[in-house]
Amino acid sequence: MSTYRFAVSVMPKDGILDPQGRAVEGSLPHLGISAVHAIRVGRRVELSVDAAGEAEARAIVERLAGELLANPVIESWTIARADGEGRAG
Amino acid sequence: MSTYRFAVSVMPKDGILDPQGRAVEGSLPHLGISAVHAIRVGRRVELSVDAAGEAEARAIVERLAGELLANPVIESWTIARADGEGRAG
Repeated sequence: MSTYRFAVSVMPKDGILDPQGRAVEGSLPHLGISAVHAIRVGRRVELSVDAAGEAEARAIVERLAGELLANPVIESWTIARADGEGRAG
Repeated sequence: MSTYRFAVSVMPKDGILDPQGRAVEGSLPHLGISAVHAIRVGRRVELSVDAAGEAEARAIVERLAGELLANPVIESWTIARADGEGRAG
């Protein structure tokens, strides 16, 4: 049994209204920043999984993402190793 | 002038209470998941920057992160290219 750390990035799907992104864009003029655009705000969830192998660990994270961390209707997600290994996975 | 896309990951600092992470952990038993622990919930902000070079673009993102996207007292952040380039940077 090993412990694997993952990061789940949950973002609003393209075309879905992103009020947090709009709020950040609305604040840019106050900072004198005009070069930034296309802002999308989502969530990043980091977690550890105890499993016999990475495939088993990743399956648990995939289920957790679809059932609890994200709303599949309006959000998409990506899963990446967050312990410096398996970045190509 | 080029456009660079970045992802800013904003996470609660170690030792800072993370009520969202606790809430996710509290929901795991309802899903029958016991192998997941050490959950931290933060934000992921994706944005595009128009700049003459990557260093100039990154400096703008760094300023934006420290002044608007994160609360430096309780949160830390990392900046990464999000357009498939400069991942080693």
